[in-house]
Amino acid sequence: MQLMRKYVLTSEIAREIINKAEEKAKEFGVRVCIAVVDDGGNLLEFRRMTGAPILSIGISQNKAYTAIAFGLPTSKWYELIKDEPALLHGIVHTPRLVIFAGGVPIKVNGQIIGGIGVSGATAQQDEEIALAGISVVENLTNIEQ
Amino acid sequence: MQLMRKYVLTSEIAREIINKAEEKAKEFGVRVCIAVVDDGGNLLEFRRMTGAPILSIGISQNKAYTAIAFGLPTSKWYELIKDEPALLHGIVHTPRLVIFAGGVPIKVNGQIIGGIGVSGATAQQDEEIALAGISVVENLTNIEQ
Amino acid sequence: MQLMRKYVLTSEIAREIINKAEEKAKEFGVRVCIAVVDDGGNLLEFRRMTGAPILSIGISQNKAYTAIAFGLPTSKWYELIKDEPALLHGIVHTPRLVIFAGGVPIKVNGQIIGGIGVSGATAQQDEEIALAGISVVENLTNIEQ
Amino acid sequence: MQLMRKYVLTSEIAREIINKAEEKAKEFGVRVCIAVVDDGGNLLEFRRMTGAPILSIGISQNKAYTAIAFGLPTSKWYELIKDEPALLHGIVHTPRLVIFAGGVPIKVNGQIIGGIGVSGATAQQDEEIALAGISVVENLTNIEQ
Repeated sequence: MQLMRKYVLTSEIAREIINKAEEKAKEFGVRVCIAVVDDGGNLLEFRRMTGAPILSIGISQNKAYTAIAFGLPTSKWYELIKDEPALLHGIVHTPRLVIFAGGVPIKVNGQIIGGIGVSGATAQQDEEIALAGISVVENLTNIEQ
Repeated sequence: MQLMRKYVLTSEIAREIINKAEEKAKEFGVRVCIAVVDDGGNLLEFRRMTGAPILSIGISQNKAYTAIAFGLPTSKWYELIKDEPALLHGIVHTPRLVIFAGGVPIKVNGQIIGGIGVSGATAQQDEEIALAGISVVENLTNIEQ
Repeated sequence: MQLMRKYVLTSEIAREIINKAEEKAKEFGVRVCIAVVDDGGNLLEFRRMTGAPILSIGISQNKAYTAIAFGLPTSKWYELIKDEPALLHGIVHTPRLVIFAGGVPIKVNGQIIGGIGVSGATAQQDEEIALAGISVVENLTNIEQ
Repeated sequence: MQLMRKYVLTSEIAREIINKAEEKAKEFGVRVCIAVVDDGGNLLEFRRMTGAPILSIGISQNKAYTAIAFGLPTSKWYELIKDEPALLHGIVHTPRLVIFAGGVPIKVNGQIIGGIGVSGATAQQDEEIALAGISVVENLTNIEQ
């Protein structure tokens, strides 16, 4: 019987992820909310760009939560449930579950270490912004295997 | 680094908006709830006309909230999401989001300064009542550019 | 009948406030959560320092909310209610109300433009960290009277 | 900029913790609920012994949550706040916070890797049962320093 080990996001990395995501949002000329949660779904860092919709405050956090809570980008959910009417009409009521794009798990060596959620632009742009953010982690070099 | 400035609804204007909206409701011969929120979504003024449905107390407030939280009339939401099934089945679960007519942002010089929400008649009448209400603000003359 | 005008926090200033607050936390050698909300109580920026308690995620946001929602530092609340047993036992149940130090309104020219909430250290340290954060706004020079 | 690493509870260890805690409860002749959460506060394993109070289902989980969310045994909370009236009357309203004994963080090398919460007996027995449970982790030998 043995403990496992896992990687953990720091506050500094969460901030870098948000900075990078915001750069992408500015490239697109959109104003979004960006949330980063740890692997337990607890909020680490959040930013509402000036003028981003208030509605996106909660949605961005829920996208980040959904990403860690099921280990999939939120953009995959609709595909998963669309042909199962009971899921399509049922599972969407799960608290905090978001089934449209903009939430992406943050992974290192296949392990989920957190999630990012973006809301305020089109769902596709939200996801691209999220992916730009997590490129910060993909570029970390000093990760032991 | 500089603060922005923006316009703010007063209690007096909120009441005028509701008075004007109520006039329209009376023209239609309907009984509605009318809510006005500020730009942060916090309730400023509320009126339930005698005999208006209790169910509309909450819906009118959520319509006003939705209007400021995304900056669009709630009547635009269905159009936005109807061809995006993930949104159609997903975003409707966002707390306080209303996707049918009756909520309208109150804008001055392109800035959202609040929202009005009307509920109790048909969705189309609700919206017309809301629009009648906010004509009060459109007619304000002493707004500096 | 005339609209008022108000100052508005930007995302950039919210971030500066949190950066400054975090510096103070590091001076104290403590790990805290720091939240900045706008004048409507809606979250603008949030940071959980590495190792700060998860319990503080919500408390910091509620402190910031309480600060704007009543216009007082949360440290003033206990003094206000301690000799009124009905308040002492009653008002503390108000959702999101925090009656201990760490939440401070952000004011410009006497106007509340937002709130900061800090949680994770002692209540007194939390407040000092919050005050350090909002010194950023007090030092803004280009504010029209 | 570097990721941290930390230890992680497995399902197997969580079950061992609960088995050990249940043994202690049986020694005491009491019927309790026992919850084990991971370091993010998410439920890993739960057991309601036959005849344990239904009220304890929630309390045990909140005790485990409180333990990880602040890093202290819940039995320490009253001591912390009893001489600070603002906390005594205020912080007790924090959602999921439990300020009486029975919740204990599970630590390895000083790191919080989870929490256990026990409810259904006296607060003191609840804590002893929790401590018996986590002795499982203290006895793990193959932990790298």
